[in-house]
Amino acid sequence: MIIDGLIEKIADMKAPVCAGLDTRIEYFPDSFAKEYDLSGFTGAAAAVFEFNRVLIDALCRIVPCIKIQNAFYEMYGIPGIESYQKTIEYARSKGMFVIADVKRGDIGSSSAAYSAAHIGLTVLRENSERAFDSDFMTVNPYFGIDGLQPFIDDCIAYQKGIFVLVKTSNPSSCQLQDLELESGGRVYEKVAELVDQWGRQCIGRHGYSSVGAVVGATHPQEGAVLRKNMKHTFFLLPGYGAQGASAQDVRSMLDRDGMGGIVNSSRALLLAWKAKNTADFAAAAVEAAQEMIDDLNA
Amino acid sequence: MIIDGLIEKIADMKAPVCAGLDTRIEYFPDSFAKEYDLSGFTGAAAAVFEFNRVLIDALCRIVPCIKIQNAFYEMYGIPGIESYQKTIEYARSKGMFVIADVKRGDIGSSSAAYSAAHIGLTVLRENSERAFDSDFMTVNPYFGIDGLQPFIDDCIAYQKGIFVLVKTSNPSSCQLQDLELESGGRVYEKVAELVDQWGRQCIGRHGYSSVGAVVGATHPQEGAVLRKNMKHTFFLLPGYGAQGASAQDVRSMLDRDGMGGIVNSSRALLLAWKAKNTADFAAAAVEAAQEMIDDLNA
Repeated sequence: MIIDGLIEKIADMKAPVCAGLDTRIEYFPDSFAKEYDLSGFTGAAAAVFEFNRVLIDALCRIVPCIKIQNAFYEMYGIPGIESYQKTIEYARSKGMFVIADVKRGDIGSSSAAYSAAHIGLTVLRENSERAFDSDFMTVNPYFGIDGLQPFIDDCIAYQKGIFVLVKTSNPSSCQLQDLELESGGRVYEKVAELVDQWGRQCIGRHGYSSVGAVVGATHPQEGAVLRKNMKHTFFLLPGYGAQGASAQDVRSMLDRDGMGGIVNSSRALLLAWKAKNTADFAAAAVEAAQEMIDDLNA
Repeated sequence: MIIDGLIEKIADMKAPVCAGLDTRIEYFPDSFAKEYDLSGFTGAAAAVFEFNRVLIDALCRIVPCIKIQNAFYEMYGIPGIESYQKTIEYARSKGMFVIADVKRGDIGSSSAAYSAAHIGLTVLRENSERAFDSDFMTVNPYFGIDGLQPFIDDCIAYQKGIFVLVKTSNPSSCQLQDLELESGGRVYEKVAELVDQWGRQCIGRHGYSSVGAVVGATHPQEGAVLRKNMKHTFFLLPGYGAQGASAQDVRSMLDRDGMGGIVNSSRALLLAWKAKNTADFAAAAVEAAQEMIDDLNA
């Protein structure tokens, strides 16, 4: 199970940390930006990949995993998606795990196609090919199990993983996710129960499933309850740093060994050069990542 | 408001019908397939676009709109996404409305990027560009309003539209969407209420909003109630044909004038050549579309 590999790499590096490469041209120091023509998709996308490549080279020694937010690449059109693909390939070539943050979800036949694109295999005439080939992808649970099973099938067939949205980090996550159910509990708690149950199809040797959950680090109380109730579910925890969650908030969502989840930080790493008043964005990101690791391990 | 344009085109053509271009290489007649190398992404994607082009040329005279399922293009990698983009451009050049069936949804900053990609504008250095430029896109409501507002903002800024998932056509849609709430009603009914409320920001001259809803035609009873409760919400109705919904099922989800929604059919049109035992897939699709239009207008 791929989740075992991720857990072991986190333990080796003592770093339950994921670097979110939500890269956009507004995040570049001037000295970097001036090397590119940022007035069109082609130059912008080339700069985004180069920024990512430098960050990956620097971060791969201390951070086990990247998360790559598909939206920030789609917005630069086809060149953006090429940079998305190249970033995935490059991070994997450096031994990092890659989470495709795509939040896909649809009826069964369409989910099967999305799964083929991101973690599976596309069947062609007398051949098959991989399109984007990440290790993990994020998925949306709104369609229920027949919209999710194609992803789970590929997790099993190709040793891949998914993280299903349970309780998201944004303020209005409450609007749907916190609705109280007649049967007791809230919508996200019911989703949590379902995800934990669906995940039983692929539990690894460390007791966690390759079917994980997205739980916003911005909701420490809810997260602590979920940690207790979802014994076999590994958490992807966004919201640390720029979105406001602290190491203290996150600790309650990990298990007794400080495992059971990986904490994502995007903007706080990408923009560390600003906070540290330097143009060396890679060195600044490494320093910020190390501070985050120390903070989480304290 | 773009919804006015769609409504008027539907009325002109007397065709509340959307052709779903969920094109995949398995759907090609042999005589078409043999012209392409379908063993790799490049040939497969080229064939998909050519199949779409011929269908669009044939269908644009009687059908006002296409829906293009992003998953079936992502699975053919970058070449697939190029065909996706070319299909959108080609259909719009033929005067058809285009619904990007991408079901995106994320926290606010990421939703803003998805919106820029599909219906908005991407800001670059001293310039801006459109990436995929559809008329409408489908979005997922799980994040609540701060995940949806960026899409609504672009609907207003650029005269575009969205369809928010309310009650999906697949069998396990019940698993989350039908959960009963303590306050009364079900999850999808609460989502329906929110969507109708959010849509008040962009109601056009025909009384419908450019913020529409996806309601599976496979749920006629639920759909009839939603039609009554969502007075300003235009429906995208998938599930007709291959997924099992009939014209009878659909009629209860339209208003008294037979308006208020557009019915999608994908596989029944794409594979009409098989049912009609011909290799002329375009003529077969036109015939099937005309039967569907007659059926809905009966």
